[in-house]
Amino acid sequence: MNAPQPKAQNKAPKNAISPTRAENYAQWYQQVVKSSDMAEMSGVRGCMIIKGWGYGAWELMQRDLDARFKATGHDNYYFPLFIPLSYFQKEADHVEGFAKEMAVVTHHRLSVKDGKLMPDGELEEPLVVRPTSETVIGEAMSKWIKSYRDLPVLLNQWANVVRWEMRPRILLRTAEFLWQEGHTAHETFEEAMAETRQMHEIYRQFSEEVLAVPVVSGEKPANERFPGAVNSYSIEAMMQDGRALQAGTSHYLGQNFAKSIGIQFQGREGAVEHVHTTSWGASTRLLGAIVMTHGDDDGMRMPPRIAPQQVIIAPIVRSDADQKAVMDYCEALKDELGALSYAGLPLRVRVDKRDMAGSDKRWEWIKKGVPLLLEIGQRDITEGKVCVTRRDKLAEGKKFLLRADFIASVVGELKSIQDGMFEAALAFQKARTVTNITTKAEFDAYFSKDADNSFVGGQGFVRAKWSGDPASLKLLDTHAVTIRCVPFDQDGKEGKCVLTGAPATQDVIFARAY
Amino acid sequence: MNAPQPKAQNKAPKNAISPTRAENYAQWYQQVVKSSDMAEMSGVRGCMIIKGWGYGAWELMQRDLDARFKATGHDNYYFPLFIPLSYFQKEADHVEGFAKEMAVVTHHRLSVKDGKLMPDGELEEPLVVRPTSETVIGEAMSKWIKSYRDLPVLLNQWANVVRWEMRPRILLRTAEFLWQEGHTAHETFEEAMAETRQMHEIYRQFSEEVLAVPVVSGEKPANERFPGAVNSYSIEAMMQDGRALQAGTSHYLGQNFAKSIGIQFQGREGAVEHVHTTSWGASTRLLGAIVMTHGDDDGMRMPPRIAPQQVIIAPIVRSDADQKAVMDYCEALKDELGALSYAGLPLRVRVDKRDMAGSDKRWEWIKKGVPLLLEIGQRDITEGKVCVTRRDKLAEGKKFLLRADFIASVVGELKSIQDGMFEAALAFQKARTVTNITTKAEFDAYFSKDADNSFVGGQGFVRAKWSGDPASLKLLDTHAVTIRCVPFDQDGKEGKCVLTGAPATQDVIFARAY
Repeated sequence: MNAPQPKAQNKAPKNAISPTRAENYAQWYQQVVKSSDMAEMSGVRGCMIIKGWGYGAWELMQRDLDARFKATGHDNYYFPLFIPLSYFQKEADHVEGFAKEMAVVTHHRLSVKDGKLMPDGELEEPLVVRPTSETVIGEAMSKWIKSYRDLPVLLNQWANVVRWEMRPRILLRTAEFLWQEGHTAHETFEEAMAETRQMHEIYRQFSEEVLAVPVVSGEKPANERFPGAVNSYSIEAMMQDGRALQAGTSHYLGQNFAKSIGIQFQGREGAVEHVHTTSWGASTRLLGAIVMTHGDDDGMRMPPRIAPQQVIIAPIVRSDADQKAVMDYCEALKDELGALSYAGLPLRVRVDKRDMAGSDKRWEWIKKGVPLLLEIGQRDITEGKVCVTRRDKLAEGKKFLLRADFIASVVGELKSIQDGMFEAALAFQKARTVTNITTKAEFDAYFSKDADNSFVGGQGFVRAKWSGDPASLKLLDTHAVTIRCVPFDQDGKEGKCVLTGAPATQDVIFARAY
Repeated sequence: MNAPQPKAQNKAPKNAISPTRAENYAQWYQQVVKSSDMAEMSGVRGCMIIKGWGYGAWELMQRDLDARFKATGHDNYYFPLFIPLSYFQKEADHVEGFAKEMAVVTHHRLSVKDGKLMPDGELEEPLVVRPTSETVIGEAMSKWIKSYRDLPVLLNQWANVVRWEMRPRILLRTAEFLWQEGHTAHETFEEAMAETRQMHEIYRQFSEEVLAVPVVSGEKPANERFPGAVNSYSIEAMMQDGRALQAGTSHYLGQNFAKSIGIQFQGREGAVEHVHTTSWGASTRLLGAIVMTHGDDDGMRMPPRIAPQQVIIAPIVRSDADQKAVMDYCEALKDELGALSYAGLPLRVRVDKRDMAGSDKRWEWIKKGVPLLLEIGQRDITEGKVCVTRRDKLAEGKKFLLRADFIASVVGELKSIQDGMFEAALAFQKARTVTNITTKAEFDAYFSKDADNSFVGGQGFVRAKWSGDPASLKLLDTHAVTIRCVPFDQDGKEGKCVLTGAPATQDVIFARAY
């Protein structure tokens, strides 16, 4: 099985994850995150711990994205975690967008008062823990930029940010998360818009090529823009319950921040002008996106390009006499595999030497979703073989390959797993995207049928005409549906708005979203 | 000139940095950081901005250290930024050590009150912005560890931390800084101590091999231990004003945190025991250390292994007719250099195409400390040559080499620069380490002579006998001197304490410190 589809019921396999996707998708998600050991909620309200297997995938995402950012001329910087309240107040829309979810530092020490440890040393001006850094980076740019010769400024920051979420959901919506935020300043609208679109396209390529997550690429409607932006663009992925997940955004901020902060330059003709700025970001919620795109009823399935380990070798030792020969064989295999490369990096291979029952170890790695699992015992050595399990074809079970044949084919296998995961997710997205809904009645019927969404027979994306009238958006509230984006691949044909019947030319994506 | 020594006065060169080291070391440091564009203080009190050239060096440090951590079995995790007050209270020494410098979050939103934006939504329990993560990671470990089979736990975190410094100094002591903190849990004292010492040794190797910063490696005296630690080890580097800078620390925490937090496991014999923990860290203050170790009166000198660019190619275009040929020659040179490797990584080479005066560009790169600067004009192309400036031999001026000869020698040149910088810094450290002071009178005379320390003729490390009597430490206060460490390479001979005359066997390093 390599498609994220429900298993045929007549097989009735015992699944490693309970509940299954069909039984309860939300609980299935929590279980996969937990049993894959990717992350867990901490004892600190709303904050998570990203564990080794999840952080390892994040590091590989970072490495790939970072190379794409550097190849397009961006340097990494680091700006303060704390933002004075006064910085936020300069851009009205921006502060309004974030005020409800800001962690605020008010004191700078602890002291014992009445026998109790209490905050002390009140700050003159409260400091906000950054929810995003447009303001603090804008302040710096306003000092650095004097002339058109100083432009463009192209920078990126890898950082933690805090948004106080009232209903946290692990990896998707937590009080603190990790991300990168790119911030650039340009001389002209055209340059800034080209940058905005370039970075948006980088996210699309990254998502599809590296995460094996297909996306719809488009512009956000006005009501879904980033607070303070002129245009916002996003990539929207479809989870296996049909909901959308925004997987990366890129914003053209116009001269809004430049004017409120005062980021000016002397132009080529001598006049003082305001820069045009952009910002763009992707976060650790991508870890949630890969779980909900690729996981199945046996747990996580890691796309090979971001799998912290691509091959796990589990030695099966049945007696002390076997021990050394098995371990030596496994280590030699690991060294030989580690000398190979896939997608420009050496293969990531680990020998799992832990002393535990073989079947427990096997299921642990299946739940973590390692692409290839090798189990090696004395008999395999005698026969010159390796026992291989392909995580994306678990139903096919173990295969016994000649060692040399395995080595010769392993890179191709990883590529086949990566490509297969993308193709399966794309097929799912296409199957759950409805394009023949043209009336409000059909629209209501579609989204009423399955208000919670579900894995089997649940709803997905409705691609339909919309007039662009903001007033029509209130018709979506009963379904908790939003317009995810206006996809770039418009057909341009005239039609009627699916919500109001008014004349409409643009196609949009309607969906429930994470 | 490749030693960090004052220039011969009779040459009277015009220096790029004013004041020079000899004129005012503290101000020279600020100027080098600023003019190298490595970092600057932000508008947020005590917080800095690490700019592209500084952050690029930090990324290379991270990459190298991270590989060493992974090679010794550590995985990266990420833990919450916020730590509930109650976590800190469990370990008395620990909270006492950090209470005076903690940023405290007390509210989770902003609201308009009386027309003014104010903190709102007071938290039930204040959250401390992590100054270090022993407590929050210990809480997690207490849930993860059940049996000796779960041990060791070997993890590391790359993160920002906050310590509210009253007298910030850029890169060295700021309210927020970046670091890595390793945290491990072990079954036995022996294993935990072996880990502590292993990581300490990794820092030493990294500092000397990669940063070209020689260090004294040893154990901290009791009064200088990390709050809550049983043993603390550090590497101590000597800056060019003779002061010590602690460049990495590794702590054996005993069972202190395990007992206060409750990190227990079922041992091999069935009894419930407390784990032994360690922690170890290095931070962005290493960027300050390389400035003060390698900088000279013309600015920064980047050790090649952490130089964000190892070779800068500056095209010298004197006419529009030259333009294309010069740029093509430079790009081709860049590609050819980029195909070479040094220290396991492709050469980092950039063509600086900015439209600015050649001499301004030249001095900008000298102040940034790029190891090799190439200036290429039409005449060089005609002659098949490159014009090379070696930053560590600036006094030798430009050299004109045949292009092929330069390509053939460039990796060797980088190695020679790296090695030369280390050798020069080691010679400086040795020259400024005094080993013949045996009495309090001599000691007082030595540290009284130059209470502020200085570059020329300033003081440095005094290596002398110390009794170990804590009461004797107060004798150091008048000089603002501390015991930096008890070096590992003890002679073991009996002698008299330099402070009190009491019998003493151990050699220690006395110095002023950053």
